[in-house]
Amino acid sequence: MSVAHLLDQPHHDGSELYVAQDTPRLGDVVPVRLRVPAAGRERAVWVRTIRDAEPRMVEAVLDHADDHERWYVAHVPLHNPVTGYRWLLDEPGGYRWLTGRGTFARDVTDAADFRLTVHPRTPAWLADAVVYQIFPDRFARSAARRPMPDWAEPARWDDEPVARGPHTPVQLYGGDLGGIEEHLDHLTRLGVDTVYLTPIFPARSNHRYDASSFDHVDPLLGGDEALVSLRRALRERGMRLMGDFTTNHTGAGHEWFERALADRSAPEAGFYYWDDSALGYAAWLDVPTLPKLNYATQELAARMIDGPQSVIGRWLAEPFALDGWRIDVANMTGRYATDDHAHRIARTIRATMAGINPESVLVSEHFHDAGPDLSGDGWQANMNYGAFTKPLWTWLVDPATTLDFLGIPTTIPRRGGPAVVETMREFDSTVPWHVTARQWNMLGSHDTPRLRTVVGSRDLVEVAAGILFTYPGTPAMFAGDEGGITGTNGEHGRVPMPWDAIEAGDPARWDAATFATYQRLIALRRFSRALREGGLRWAVVEDDAVAYLRETADERVLVLAARAPWAGTTLPRHLLAPGETAENLYGGAALAVEPRGLGLPGDGPGVQVWRLR
Amino acid sequence: MSVAHLLDQPHHDGSELYVAQDTPRLGDVVPVRLRVPAAGRERAVWVRTIRDAEPRMVEAVLDHADDHERWYVAHVPLHNPVTGYRWLLDEPGGYRWLTGRGTFARDVTDAADFRLTVHPRTPAWLADAVVYQIFPDRFARSAARRPMPDWAEPARWDDEPVARGPHTPVQLYGGDLGGIEEHLDHLTRLGVDTVYLTPIFPARSNHRYDASSFDHVDPLLGGDEALVSLRRALRERGMRLMGDFTTNHTGAGHEWFERALADRSAPEAGFYYWDDSALGYAAWLDVPTLPKLNYATQELAARMIDGPQSVIGRWLAEPFALDGWRIDVANMTGRYATDDHAHRIARTIRATMAGINPESVLVSEHFHDAGPDLSGDGWQANMNYGAFTKPLWTWLVDPATTLDFLGIPTTIPRRGGPAVVETMREFDSTVPWHVTARQWNMLGSHDTPRLRTVVGSRDLVEVAAGILFTYPGTPAMFAGDEGGITGTNGEHGRVPMPWDAIEAGDPARWDAATFATYQRLIALRRFSRALREGGLRWAVVEDDAVAYLRETADERVLVLAARAPWAGTTLPRHLLAPGETAENLYGGAALAVEPRGLGLPGDGPGVQVWRLR
Repeated sequence: MSVAHLLDQPHHDGSELYVAQDTPRLGDVVPVRLRVPAAGRERAVWVRTIRDAEPRMVEAVLDHADDHERWYVAHVPLHNPVTGYRWLLDEPGGYRWLTGRGTFARDVTDAADFRLTVHPRTPAWLADAVVYQIFPDRFARSAARRPMPDWAEPARWDDEPVARGPHTPVQLYGGDLGGIEEHLDHLTRLGVDTVYLTPIFPARSNHRYDASSFDHVDPLLGGDEALVSLRRALRERGMRLMGDFTTNHTGAGHEWFERALADRSAPEAGFYYWDDSALGYAAWLDVPTLPKLNYATQELAARMIDGPQSVIGRWLAEPFALDGWRIDVANMTGRYATDDHAHRIARTIRATMAGINPESVLVSEHFHDAGPDLSGDGWQANMNYGAFTKPLWTWLVDPATTLDFLGIPTTIPRRGGPAVVETMREFDSTVPWHVTARQWNMLGSHDTPRLRTVVGSRDLVEVAAGILFTYPGTPAMFAGDEGGITGTNGEHGRVPMPWDAIEAGDPARWDAATFATYQRLIALRRFSRALREGGLRWAVVEDDAVAYLRETADERVLVLAARAPWAGTTLPRHLLAPGETAENLYGGAALAVEPRGLGLPGDGPGVQVWRLR
Repeated sequence: MSVAHLLDQPHHDGSELYVAQDTPRLGDVVPVRLRVPAAGRERAVWVRTIRDAEPRMVEAVLDHADDHERWYVAHVPLHNPVTGYRWLLDEPGGYRWLTGRGTFARDVTDAADFRLTVHPRTPAWLADAVVYQIFPDRFARSAARRPMPDWAEPARWDDEPVARGPHTPVQLYGGDLGGIEEHLDHLTRLGVDTVYLTPIFPARSNHRYDASSFDHVDPLLGGDEALVSLRRALRERGMRLMGDFTTNHTGAGHEWFERALADRSAPEAGFYYWDDSALGYAAWLDVPTLPKLNYATQELAARMIDGPQSVIGRWLAEPFALDGWRIDVANMTGRYATDDHAHRIARTIRATMAGINPESVLVSEHFHDAGPDLSGDGWQANMNYGAFTKPLWTWLVDPATTLDFLGIPTTIPRRGGPAVVETMREFDSTVPWHVTARQWNMLGSHDTPRLRTVVGSRDLVEVAAGILFTYPGTPAMFAGDEGGITGTNGEHGRVPMPWDAIEAGDPARWDAATFATYQRLIALRRFSRALREGGLRWAVVEDDAVAYLRETADERVLVLAARAPWAGTTLPRHLLAPGETAENLYGGAALAVEPRGLGLPGDGPGVQVWRLR
């Protein structure tokens, strides 16, 4: 195999080495910087910006240079709220563009242009956070005993979740908020600091995405008091709390829907889409229990999203004081046939939240191509399936897998590093850097098979987690992944936390080694600002190994991830300045510092992290 | 050089072999078809559609097959006005997507998805048209003598246009509409049938993009009567007439702007953007003579674009009866800083036009990435610099050129066929097929250097024109290109038509051989429906040669264009069914029909066209 490195390419991203990190204002002139390796052949460097949909060229000037690289700076006028820009390298043989996808010796459309926006950046705390997703019915039960609702089929804590069929949504294990509160030591040990709860409103299913009211916490979970108590307990530990809200639909059992059904002249009748279908109304993916909301009326907006008295607003205020919302099927919210209120809704939600707590964060669920929805003043981050979960799975998937690929009717394909990284770059490039650096990277969720089942081995779980905690974006993990919980689809993976096995050290049901891996990787991320805030330069992209640099003004970290043994390669020697050393922060292997360069070991599978300084 | 062909790939486009050509309605279920060569390894075929921003999978079924290929059909529900879709080929080793850019063995964003829309298709006459662009000051002078305006510097008909500087816009040659009418035999001989006039309203420049009124035709051009007369003469020849309108700005000498300057309480004061700049108002690219229009008020829309009494409307009605508008800087129209009225304006213009003449066409000027503006119910076609002019120039440019590349501050680069075709596919893929098949392909315009100057030789002009008249889209040519007129930029290329040289047969000023080439290529396009309406399958893409198939249900045409001698290659034998022959329609070379395949000759530069039947 022939291997080489990619560090001979010019580089720019939105991190602090290249762009100042404060939010610019309309009319500002923003300096942006480009690094070009010494071997570059540029005769001149320009930035192309888009002003009122028309390209404009701004010449860059050489800012400084050393033996190894040249840095250029150009000044971009922020004429529009979102201003796209790209670099032009005028080189012998024809110019090249540098966009978020890399360099192109031909013209390319604007989709991957870098972006500056005047919209407030996603709050910085998110980049420092590690999100721990909890599905309340499956995390832990308090001692409280409550009557079973009529729709539920009680399950024992050790029962295997039913993967599909009519029993799946009604199998109720009885986890509650009190149970979560009692197990916060587990989160502290692990090192996570932000709890994301899937829905907690009353509903007629174990997942509660079919809310019957947005006024109170489900009594089955302990009601409002339990949330206030959990909130207090989290605050005492310095932890944050995020909620989950279905803006796209309610449950068919929702009080508004029932009122609308009973009286078509009720205000609530205007909240839904009535039609001539067999069902009589539009529903999420035609599921009868999930009637779709119609945002044509101001009354619905006022109740749901607009202002401090809306659902969005009330739960952000004391005593609940959620630190933000994850919005269920944000991609579909407000979109139906000829209607598209999506961006207005996102903007309204964000404005409501900012009015109550500017540090609160608004995260969208959008499974595929979220870019066009993420540049504005609405969603501030996305559950990053497109640029992270899905491509990474295709790199690390068990070749013998029989798992479907998240709605694609074929098994998860296994791809080589170049296809995987090209996909990550393509999807990443459609959003501004401050979103890339804050969005929720995941290795799975309550809507997917479990990571352990996808990749098939503890070693590859470690490789996946190694990337999760060293990559730009907020690591968001599903409770149980840290113990190697398995599951063949989203529903099957909603396995109750096996507290007895955790305490007893039962390796058949809880993988303590994986837990230790997560602990160490989370600690590693906390240890290094570059891993949280640094830019991203791809150094090696081979079928079986990738390596990248995370760099801030004061730190350079090199990450190597291999899914299998590979040939190894050599990186430029000057990544270590004279007198600097390569300190292994994770994985234990030495970086071979030789006169001809830095030798990356060819071992695999595994993850190595070095700090170069 | 190793050469091969690309016909082993699955194929789909929006032409009649794959999608019915009528405009579907919301709620329709539209069959779409895919062809897969016999060597394909698909286990199953699916279509992924996007419904309310969420992907849905629809399984395709095998429709029919022969020894050479399999045809699949899938049914796409049209739930949204614009519905994106792509094909999934489930193959051993992992699925591939097929989008408008080709096949990808990895996930890709939605930008290149195929599109179905419920918006009325661009009128079919445009696909049958050949557009002839006339810059009125430079085409021909009638005998009428008119007083020179104060701003003008009179030029003699043989003077070389001044390329840049203060004299450029005021150099007035005195061409008029009567002159055009007197020379329509030239158009008839050439074979064109649609005249596109750059602006004809009064102004203070020779280009008239700085209108001082939209109420009448410039008296210097002969006034309204001359337009009525030209209209009548064109109709008698079965020719159409398109106008050119500046929706983005007026001239600083416009009656509205003067009224606004004089009285800031006048209604016209609301038509512009007043600011604290040295100029005091926003202007197109900060050019003081071109104040930018502000579409916040309904009054401006009513005067400009909305309804039969608007400028858009009045000139479409008798007695002027324009067949459509080309909209100047459509990309910037309605966009300024935080304002973006662009799609609303395009929709309003289109609705106004449809109300007067549904067969009228609305063509935008958009120089770079027009895709996001072209899927809706506004602009129906675009001046296709991005997917045609610019990439084709980079293939055919004189390697010794010193010409700037249309605003990019470096000379036009020379690229190989793969980079060129990838660019054409990428930009083409962002618009629905009915736009691809109708948009204005150009080899230059009044805003560019002349084709002859770009490519540097008559032979390469022929190659360029060969592609222009055999490629999907409406050929739009700038008057004079057919005679090899030269010019180093847009302004310098606005050369008066050398009627004396044309009549005298003076080869120094008029290239009769190029005229004959254009004549034959235009006649070729008229001869073949496949060249006007067929799909597009790339067959060969090499550095120095490209070949493609244009196919309808009843015709298959093969086009080969080479910029230089190349290795030649062999295409599958079955492109000719038993008993069918390859008839050369252009270029004169034989297609070598041999048992092992169809041999493409390696000559170049040149163009060959064969009909296979």
